[in-house]
Amino acid sequence: MTHLLLGTGSALPGEPIDNERLKERFGTDPRWVDRFIGTRVRHLGVDLDTGKPTHTLVDLATEAAEAALADAGLEPHDIDVLVLATASPDHLMPASVNLVADRLGLQAVPTYQLQSGCAGAVQALSLAGRMLDDEHRTALVIGADSCAKHLVLDHDFAALPPSELVNYVIFGDGAGAAVLGLPEEPDAPGTHLGTVRNGFVGAGRDPGQIIRWFGAADRTSGEQPVAEDYKAIEAGVPALAADVLADLLDRTGWAAGSITHLLPPQLGGRMTEQITRGLVERFGLTATEISCVAETGNNGNALPFLQLDRLFPLTPGDRALAIAIESSKWIRTGFALEGK
Amino acid sequence: MTHLLLGTGSALPGEPIDNERLKERFGTDPRWVDRFIGTRVRHLGVDLDTGKPTHTLVDLATEAAEAALADAGLEPHDIDVLVLATASPDHLMPASVNLVADRLGLQAVPTYQLQSGCAGAVQALSLAGRMLDDEHRTALVIGADSCAKHLVLDHDFAALPPSELVNYVIFGDGAGAAVLGLPEEPDAPGTHLGTVRNGFVGAGRDPGQIIRWFGAADRTSGEQPVAEDYKAIEAGVPALAADVLADLLDRTGWAAGSITHLLPPQLGGRMTEQITRGLVERFGLTATEISCVAETGNNGNALPFLQLDRLFPLTPGDRALAIAIESSKWIRTGFALEGK
Repeated sequence: MTHLLLGTGSALPGEPIDNERLKERFGTDPRWVDRFIGTRVRHLGVDLDTGKPTHTLVDLATEAAEAALADAGLEPHDIDVLVLATASPDHLMPASVNLVADRLGLQAVPTYQLQSGCAGAVQALSLAGRMLDDEHRTALVIGADSCAKHLVLDHDFAALPPSELVNYVIFGDGAGAAVLGLPEEPDAPGTHLGTVRNGFVGAGRDPGQIIRWFGAADRTSGEQPVAEDYKAIEAGVPALAADVLADLLDRTGWAAGSITHLLPPQLGGRMTEQITRGLVERFGLTATEISCVAETGNNGNALPFLQLDRLFPLTPGDRALAIAIESSKWIRTGFALEGK
Repeated sequence: MTHLLLGTGSALPGEPIDNERLKERFGTDPRWVDRFIGTRVRHLGVDLDTGKPTHTLVDLATEAAEAALADAGLEPHDIDVLVLATASPDHLMPASVNLVADRLGLQAVPTYQLQSGCAGAVQALSLAGRMLDDEHRTALVIGADSCAKHLVLDHDFAALPPSELVNYVIFGDGAGAAVLGLPEEPDAPGTHLGTVRNGFVGAGRDPGQIIRWFGAADRTSGEQPVAEDYKAIEAGVPALAADVLADLLDRTGWAAGSITHLLPPQLGGRMTEQITRGLVERFGLTATEISCVAETGNNGNALPFLQLDRLFPLTPGDRALAIAIESSKWIRTGFALEGK
């Protein structure tokens, strides 16, 4: 069974922050950022000068949701299921999805919040699709992340090693959303979401990324809050991306040459370029690449939705494959879209 | 369509901690705990003397999962989908569900982690059921919570107001799990999970409970980490529980007098007693009550699974209704079980 993508939307906080601005604030060399990360601008829900948060996760998620609803020509009361994927909720309780529901004015609908890195966006599409039935015809699905809580802005940045400085240049904040519906018939005109794949493949493998949170009892502990193993990520993600692409081609029965659009993993501008080049060469793809990370930073669960927002709607006959890899504990995900 | 409950399991950390022990440690009057909370013992994944964590959320979730698998007579490789519901993950990333998957030795299975209070347990059952299909025949579903990160153990407890002391006596840590499968035929012998209901009803209503987390940037902020509005909870939950019961009776078409087992909301021993009494009177129930909170403390997402573990399996002809209400932002959930 396929689902119809009815609308998409995005939300990015404040003005774009370029690498020159990061140099002023953190002393990071723009050429280093360009060469090794490849991200030109990002948006942050925090004022870099004062350290004050300007946009919460709920702010961003609500704004993206409203944009997707407007794009679909729907009102909040048309929504039967609400799903949010994020790694960075505003609170542990209430789950942020319910504060978004309140802002939108939803009532008596099922809500679900998935805790995940960027794989969560695909998990949310999978979950939302499965929840649709005769009674629940329309789902609003949101992916959002906010890194404001993880950015310590009063460091002596000149003393930070590159492994910590990288967190200040690679990440961004943002949200994306999509509205999913049930087609009246299998070949109804529109952008169809078919196969959605989500698989944990981290058995026996160390995490590539850890983000800790602190409660009342351990907030003064000396534990390192954010840690990445970039070498493991660079070594592991391209192969997992290829696995997903092969799996999607196998599941859909589509020839690689028939794929018109590729939505590759969005780790950072440079790594995304490399992965895309590898996929194109290995599979003989002629697809147009749909990427955003060089202009948005890595904003986790928002990314696949921001890519969808750039892609939607598909022209009849077009075929798109999307891949999202989560290196935290190694999750490979992807989905297929077809214009009818 | 119904699903089959194939096995259940529980995990509670360490020895039970009674109200006399809490008096020694926190100075709380056992008669006050008994009269207003009604919880006799609870388990905590932290050593009360040293403050050292003894059991992580992943420890508890894995232990409950292994118990449920053993109860079902299944091995980890029989599992096609893994779902964890919690309000208190060990990390933000990786999601704890993936660390549980690693411990169990799962690979290439879809995993989902729901962020929610006790409603999450029911959301997880709903999600797991929807994910079952010809390819994914068996789901392992876990609810777990760990409050160790929220308990500051070096307070001057004599100076704490009752509104803060209550957090030290009402909560507990624990995990519960269930294995769900697809019946070969609709009337296959076993414990059938039918209707599952999950609805956000918090529009325009202040949260009844807030639990904040802290990241690198705001870990030294003075924000209150845990806050409850007990008056709102006491006033709101009984009516929502009655709504769920009426809805479940309506959906199943079952007469109130035919219900053999009631699994009421587990806020605290005393509140659960009052809610159950109200439901019995209003609906004319003759069902046996299945509760655990007086002996486990309020361990959130574990509770409905701990109740299931006490109930399972149902005798043919038996009918059980379960209700879980989340006061964080007001979510009403429930499900129906039938022995065949």
